[in-house]
Amino acid sequence: MTRTPSHAAARIARVRSHIAAVALDAFVVTHLPNVQYLTGFVGTAGAAIVLRDICLLVVDFRYVSAATDLARPLDGIVRVETFESSYDEAIVECLRKAGASRIGIEAAYLPVSRFNAISAGLAAKAPLPLHSDAGTPVLVPTERIVERARIIKDAVEVEALREGGRRLAKIAAGLTDLVREGRTERAIALDIEVAMRDAGFARPAFETIVASGPNSALPHARPTARTVQAGDPTVLDFGGVYDGYCVDLTRTVQLGAPSAALRGLYAAVAEAQEAALAAVRPGVASSAIDAAARSVLERHGLGEAFGHGTGHGLGLEVHEEPRIARPSGRLPDLTVEPGMVFTIEPGAYVPGVGGVRLEDDVLVTENGCEILTR
Amino acid sequence: MTRTPSHAAARIARVRSHIAAVALDAFVVTHLPNVQYLTGFVGTAGAAIVLRDICLLVVDFRYVSAATDLARPLDGIVRVETFESSYDEAIVECLRKAGASRIGIEAAYLPVSRFNAISAGLAAKAPLPLHSDAGTPVLVPTERIVERARIIKDAVEVEALREGGRRLAKIAAGLTDLVREGRTERAIALDIEVAMRDAGFARPAFETIVASGPNSALPHARPTARTVQAGDPTVLDFGGVYDGYCVDLTRTVQLGAPSAALRGLYAAVAEAQEAALAAVRPGVASSAIDAAARSVLERHGLGEAFGHGTGHGLGLEVHEEPRIARPSGRLPDLTVEPGMVFTIEPGAYVPGVGGVRLEDDVLVTENGCEILTR
Repeated sequence: MTRTPSHAAARIARVRSHIAAVALDAFVVTHLPNVQYLTGFVGTAGAAIVLRDICLLVVDFRYVSAATDLARPLDGIVRVETFESSYDEAIVECLRKAGASRIGIEAAYLPVSRFNAISAGLAAKAPLPLHSDAGTPVLVPTERIVERARIIKDAVEVEALREGGRRLAKIAAGLTDLVREGRTERAIALDIEVAMRDAGFARPAFETIVASGPNSALPHARPTARTVQAGDPTVLDFGGVYDGYCVDLTRTVQLGAPSAALRGLYAAVAEAQEAALAAVRPGVASSAIDAAARSVLERHGLGEAFGHGTGHGLGLEVHEEPRIARPSGRLPDLTVEPGMVFTIEPGAYVPGVGGVRLEDDVLVTENGCEILTR
Repeated sequence: MTRTPSHAAARIARVRSHIAAVALDAFVVTHLPNVQYLTGFVGTAGAAIVLRDICLLVVDFRYVSAATDLARPLDGIVRVETFESSYDEAIVECLRKAGASRIGIEAAYLPVSRFNAISAGLAAKAPLPLHSDAGTPVLVPTERIVERARIIKDAVEVEALREGGRRLAKIAAGLTDLVREGRTERAIALDIEVAMRDAGFARPAFETIVASGPNSALPHARPTARTVQAGDPTVLDFGGVYDGYCVDLTRTVQLGAPSAALRGLYAAVAEAQEAALAAVRPGVASSAIDAAARSVLERHGLGEAFGHGTGHGLGLEVHEEPRIARPSGRLPDLTVEPGMVFTIEPGAYVPGVGGVRLEDDVLVTENGCEILTR
């Protein structure tokens, strides 16, 4: 499915409604995945400024030609602006021309130095009659404005995630050929990354994890020079960026017969994953999905062995909302809705025994979920 | 060469002297390459707090064991702290225990939201007698404190960069075997990335550029499905992370006979690179090295065709100081000193003709420079 002007317009409109709700008349987007979400622009630098009537895409000279091509079908929706000076000066100039006075910024991403530079630039350029009531434009720290819009995937996004999931699952089906006795974790990781590139992924979504034998008991191991041995479990956690979107899966491959203890881990983690998958449907709290997996592992005496959350949202970034985890003060416990895409990845890690993790990606549907990576 | 306690101590001492010069009694380091520089810690999250007598390394539960191993030989220099809550709360707690009152933060990296959270946490926890003169601790935005220390590489860093350069040059020597008629840019890029992994690089330092034929005239092209044709110049720009340090080189490979115009570009860019290399020695301004390359290209009528700077520093990041470019208001024009490592990469890009870029990495020595990538 091709991205059309109506997709961009709908995304920008959604963000604009969030902005209006907090009485901003401009919103400066500097987090690059958010700039990409709103405008389609991909680059190592860039900014978007959502105004009441238009979304400005601010790029430097390197990207003017690509951005202009991108914005051509978005006439009246997105307009490209460039500059000779710096991004911050260009942002100040755009805001000044637009006459913006209450200006949102992305507080979770904008560094203090850029906040100060933009503030100072606005103050210096404000047409402030000394004896009038007109104030200097103010920068308002905001959080989760574009991120909230991104939680529910639109049709273009679903298609990229579904196709990415299908291609990643195909690579996963060949893992038993890669995990052979005597091969190093690093060699296996490299083979997986090459397979992802051959399958059309632009790049790995994160550093591939291949953790064998005792290393499998470390949930965040990096691939080492260790060779896989008979009897080892090997946790393989990898993902790729397909058409801009991140997919991510984990399989645990057993070489030779597992110990009885390890067999218990496999069975418990598989049961926990099935319980979590069965819990996914519109209307449930994201923490309830975590609880479904966690209670199975607790029942098997593995509560302490499961030290991370059950899942995380996927999209332009590999870790997005919703968090599928125990409630915490920091991120909200969201109600699951159709169009959300996230991982389900319970695991159990027992030093001296080994570790098992199983991960798939799901799309929430009207009645439950579609598994994207099987 | 192994990193020893004396290297860590020297780095921390250097940063501590910069901090003392601006009358800070604590400095919160949140930019991860800077945390790595000071403590050796590598992770996806973490912070360092440089105090007058110790450097705290703050990590979450995932990294406690790795960080503790790392800090063991650094007894009295680095101490690991962990937490149950959040990084920002942990930082507040460490600062409170240390009794710090003038606290530097890294303004170019710390997001507004974290600045606000740490400020608020300090204010809430300050033992502020209502009628005393004791003030709330203040956060002071600073810039380039650790970055300045990083500009001059120490012996451990030089060794990693030298070995990385040697290995990268060896891959470059095999490029003519990869650039064959009918192969796509993407396939060539993937071969280069696999060769880097096989040569011991942990990962590419940036997205590999393979730009053939007309694409070679775009300095920031991404690899496409275009196949290389006879007569094409192909710009190959790639780099890897070796032992934590980034090296980076560019070669332009010609398939079949070049046009006369293209032959002129090759000769001019090679001459510009030699002129810049000859200009590298302690005491010159970094802008003078850029001017050496630029004046050669201008003399050949290619001033407009060279739209970027001549080089950039290399280290834990692939773009560091010094900038080797025309003076600008934003970054200082540094005086070159022994121990600096940077690229020399003039290029000329002419639509309709093609592009040529040549890049090597140099280490500044007492009398000139050592080329690391030949």
